[in-house]
Amino acid sequence: MFDNTDQLAINSIRTLSMDAIQKANSGHPGLPMGAAPMAYTLWSKVLNTNPAHSNWFNRDRFVLSAGHGSMLLYSLLHLSGFDLSMEELKNFRQWDSKTPGHPEYRHTDGVDATTGPLGQGIAMAVGMAMAERHLEGMYNKEDFNIVDHYTYALCGDGDLMEGVASEAASLAGHQQLGRLILLYDSNDISLDGDLDKSFSEDVKARFESYGWEHLLVKDGNDTAEILAAIEKAKQNTSQPTMIEVKTVIGFGAPNAGTSKVHGAPLGDEGIKAAKAAYGWEYEEPFFVPQEVYDRFKETIQTRGAKKEALWNELFEEYQAKYPELAKQLTDSLADELPNGWADELPVYGDDQALASRASSGETINALAAKLPQLFGGSADLAGSNNTNIKTDGEFTKETPAERNIWFGVREFAMGAALNGMALHGGLKVYGGTFFVFSDYLRAAIRLSAIQHLPVTYVLTHDSIAVGEDGPTHEPVEQLASLRAMPGLSVIRPADGNEVTAAWKLAIASTDTPHALVLTRQGLPTLPKSAELAEQGVAKGAYVVSPSEKSTPDVILLASGSEVNLAVQAQTELKKAGTDASVVSVPSFDLFEKQSAAYKESVLPNAVRKRVAIEMAASFGWDRYVGLDGKIIGIDRFGASAPGETIIKNYGFTVENVVETVQSL
Amino acid sequence: MFDNTDQLAINSIRTLSMDAIQKANSGHPGLPMGAAPMAYTLWSKVLNTNPAHSNWFNRDRFVLSAGHGSMLLYSLLHLSGFDLSMEELKNFRQWDSKTPGHPEYRHTDGVDATTGPLGQGIAMAVGMAMAERHLEGMYNKEDFNIVDHYTYALCGDGDLMEGVASEAASLAGHQQLGRLILLYDSNDISLDGDLDKSFSEDVKARFESYGWEHLLVKDGNDTAEILAAIEKAKQNTSQPTMIEVKTVIGFGAPNAGTSKVHGAPLGDEGIKAAKAAYGWEYEEPFFVPQEVYDRFKETIQTRGAKKEALWNELFEEYQAKYPELAKQLTDSLADELPNGWADELPVYGDDQALASRASSGETINALAAKLPQLFGGSADLAGSNNTNIKTDGEFTKETPAERNIWFGVREFAMGAALNGMALHGGLKVYGGTFFVFSDYLRAAIRLSAIQHLPVTYVLTHDSIAVGEDGPTHEPVEQLASLRAMPGLSVIRPADGNEVTAAWKLAIASTDTPHALVLTRQGLPTLPKSAELAEQGVAKGAYVVSPSEKSTPDVILLASGSEVNLAVQAQTELKKAGTDASVVSVPSFDLFEKQSAAYKESVLPNAVRKRVAIEMAASFGWDRYVGLDGKIIGIDRFGASAPGETIIKNYGFTVENVVETVQSL
Repeated sequence: MFDNTDQLAINSIRTLSMDAIQKANSGHPGLPMGAAPMAYTLWSKVLNTNPAHSNWFNRDRFVLSAGHGSMLLYSLLHLSGFDLSMEELKNFRQWDSKTPGHPEYRHTDGVDATTGPLGQGIAMAVGMAMAERHLEGMYNKEDFNIVDHYTYALCGDGDLMEGVASEAASLAGHQQLGRLILLYDSNDISLDGDLDKSFSEDVKARFESYGWEHLLVKDGNDTAEILAAIEKAKQNTSQPTMIEVKTVIGFGAPNAGTSKVHGAPLGDEGIKAAKAAYGWEYEEPFFVPQEVYDRFKETIQTRGAKKEALWNELFEEYQAKYPELAKQLTDSLADELPNGWADELPVYGDDQALASRASSGETINALAAKLPQLFGGSADLAGSNNTNIKTDGEFTKETPAERNIWFGVREFAMGAALNGMALHGGLKVYGGTFFVFSDYLRAAIRLSAIQHLPVTYVLTHDSIAVGEDGPTHEPVEQLASLRAMPGLSVIRPADGNEVTAAWKLAIASTDTPHALVLTRQGLPTLPKSAELAEQGVAKGAYVVSPSEKSTPDVILLASGSEVNLAVQAQTELKKAGTDASVVSVPSFDLFEKQSAAYKESVLPNAVRKRVAIEMAASFGWDRYVGLDGKIIGIDRFGASAPGETIIKNYGFTVENVVETVQSL
Repeated sequence: MFDNTDQLAINSIRTLSMDAIQKANSGHPGLPMGAAPMAYTLWSKVLNTNPAHSNWFNRDRFVLSAGHGSMLLYSLLHLSGFDLSMEELKNFRQWDSKTPGHPEYRHTDGVDATTGPLGQGIAMAVGMAMAERHLEGMYNKEDFNIVDHYTYALCGDGDLMEGVASEAASLAGHQQLGRLILLYDSNDISLDGDLDKSFSEDVKARFESYGWEHLLVKDGNDTAEILAAIEKAKQNTSQPTMIEVKTVIGFGAPNAGTSKVHGAPLGDEGIKAAKAAYGWEYEEPFFVPQEVYDRFKETIQTRGAKKEALWNELFEEYQAKYPELAKQLTDSLADELPNGWADELPVYGDDQALASRASSGETINALAAKLPQLFGGSADLAGSNNTNIKTDGEFTKETPAERNIWFGVREFAMGAALNGMALHGGLKVYGGTFFVFSDYLRAAIRLSAIQHLPVTYVLTHDSIAVGEDGPTHEPVEQLASLRAMPGLSVIRPADGNEVTAAWKLAIASTDTPHALVLTRQGLPTLPKSAELAEQGVAKGAYVVSPSEKSTPDVILLASGSEVNLAVQAQTELKKAGTDASVVSVPSFDLFEKQSAAYKESVLPNAVRKRVAIEMAASFGWDRYVGLDGKIIGIDRFGASAPGETIIKNYGFTVENVVETVQSL
């Protein structure tokens, strides 16, 4: 099954990786050299993907969770015929190249996920496999396995030490994700030295305890064994499988098997020695024998093209037989929303006072009725986050078409899995938890933003108004900390209509993650909100209650639950002869995108008397109040008491707003 | 061994918990009702602690990781005779009470850790057990087991689903922490419903895979079995032990065994039914039979007082025989530093250009020579974070006195374990990782801040200057996001002397966690830095290079690696006739604490032409530049290329600073 050309191909992956890292004088040669045989075996013999059409929907997914081994992936992509030239390999880790230090989705053809932050690759792969399972449930029909692919991930020891990998593996075992296969490059070395200085788990027993199958390949160079293990793993459709492959890090190098080859170039001598060890006959760096290119053509390219052609045929028949489902899938994959998807979203009148988590729940259900691609859940707080789709049951192996995901108390894995689902395509995904626990999944939100994934985070219980649960459960600095993140849209709506508007933006987006920051407590509908909210939220900030004069004496800025307080204070100020305008600021990032003229219309530069009001860290509000304004915020932690008591004691009263304005 | 009074005591814990939650109309009765027998057994029969002197050093530690079950702990504290009155129980979850929604360290007598954010209690307990082990190694002598106590934690299913618990349990198994005992309240219910909807692990196999012993108690009401299990766990000194106790959540209540009793008061009817089920004869709420108080006196109080008295005797003898060690321990426990501890810290001259991670490494080693209580490590990046104490080896079971901790790739568990060590007392602890991965442990940093723990986070590779590793490894928003956190001191030093000054503040602190944000790349020593840095850093911001005029035309503000750029730009601006002052801003939070007069001296209000320069998100700098200034920051993600290339392409050049100033 494997011949000399295969060995030459494996060595080509190794030498390309070594050469690129040496030229860049930066990178991690250890993993590509050790893991080349398993990766080659998977790609050349098994992986269904079409390098000529890297976005083919029904391809197998591949996630290099150990993203520091990026040259392994770039070598494979180049050799397989993806759009990644030798020139790009030579520009590894250089400005504007397609070969950055860690693999980047949307940046490099054939890269299925941005990886590097350890553990998250595994969790994204779990999300991909969940998406696959769900779409199977939604679309497959007898004789029409339209959705029918595997997700592979390759990880190292470091990935397995990360908590997010544990959460995700536990979730995958629970969900019995039989189409998820994890190749574990088990080399007994971590960055700082021998693995046994920090890690002494029985990995087999651990993964079996999660409900996985564990297969062991004792010799990482034994491609036949590797292939047999992959085939066996594919047969097990009721359990995810880990294939632990024992390897030698930096195989062939003089320091092979030590941490010295993990993260630094080998040097000219090291490369020479390694190439000699492989029996590599070519002096020129970056050399690939033609027979190696040919072998990749014969295998992955030919197989992929054929598989896609067969799938296209099948899908044509499917279209004929199930035109509506076919259109639905095609549209979902193209990020196109059904006509009228937003026509029946809730509109709130003056007499309503729902918590924004509750109006969010109503919006989710209104969306669910129109958007079959909606898919989401909560980290064991569905009842509190109002994330349940009431028409649907739970997503399980037996009921894969259902749309409510029980993530368990696994916030970080939830975030990373949502990223995996969004990467997979065909779905609009969301996940809920308490806002304060956005800290637990922050690193996943960052990967949503880096990858431009339209994931929606439903973050409820957004302030000290949470009350009795106390400081550990009351967000303070989370708003500022998320607002600082590039590429993330943070929206804190002030009433039900702002909630609807926020969800519309989130759903319509194809390239931006959204954090919806929602209250536990009731919020009255703002004046004229049904008219103003939609446009206002889209612009990030808007005058929700204008001053009487064309230029206000004072501007009050607020978000979320504090906008109503500002409106009340405006009335009191008027009585005292001060004419204020009230600006609702649901989103800093959306407001920053507006024209200078629009910004001036909301926040006239001449008006320097400004007070911002928000039950959160004051950090960041200076952008709008300047050196001459004031901020009524919270620069300490919360407290445990009934919410109304804390709100009052922390100064969120009409009286305090009025006094603060008068102190300017 | 257990009699009717014991049963009455267990029921007292349950009824107090129910009554308090009912009165507050808020709280989680399920856990206290189900877990009362195991908690009572531990406290009454085993736990060595002295309620009359709750800070006795050699007490056993107890962490209620499932912090939402706080009434379990408050009931125990009250009944055991800690300083927690019945009045406080009646004020559960009310403003200014000693009984907040979740247990708070420093707030309530006898609470060893603030818990509530799930999973972290387990990880803090691991840190406590590590601290105990290390101090054993440092101080115990033949016949003098001065440090000789256990750490107990009580957790629920939710804790075990959290990744941080997995990381910490793996670390505890690796470290063979035999004095760590985890009681697992295994009740098959999570907040959203039946546990088997999200969790189907074989917990026994999982913990055994980490190297733990697992013991099962099948009936959570069987106190004799529970006691036998605890005694057995104590005997196993080479493995941590999990005792899984099968319980019925909300035992006795009409909805016992369902998620309905997890997080809401039982209601009058529910309480009545539960009390009837217990055979509870007393109508009055908050009633405790005198024999129950007496039983706690006879057991935990008597035992604790005796144990402490014996320990005091032993310690007196120890003082006589090992006066220096005794004084060292006493001082460490009192947070007193040795005389001259800061006398030999490095001072850097003009000719040096070290990376701040490197000068930090030198400072750590200089501190280590003077401070026996220094203890720390890295999440598998010691070589990169420069956290190693060169005179010491690795902290292991066999070499417990050594001071370098290998945390493995477990950032979150590292943070939480550091909190546990700081809670334990007797140590000055630090931990390192890449700054970008502060996101992974952010929730632990928050618990450092909430608990006022002087933990030092060594966060290196602090900007796009990281270079080739690319956007996943380049911090952008992390500075703003940490600056927004109350109670955390964030310091980004500009040169070696600022590093030394930052470390001095961190070590001298007894109530504030510090995040030291350090470069990978070299930094020249700033002019007059050896004179200015120490005071300057302590004030958060200072004029590092003044203008010629008494009032500058322009103020340039910068932190860390950008201060030198600002100094260079100042020279160029001078040539063009603009007189700028340069302000180094190592710490926003320290500057905020200064007097108005000092602030005015650094940032004169009249000077509105201000430019801030920092290779990080601009968010937050508006506080110092106002509406009329500008910020040269980074409001997008980084890139992969040599650091110098990215720095230039992102606009961090003298030319761009000059142009920006001129555009004001």
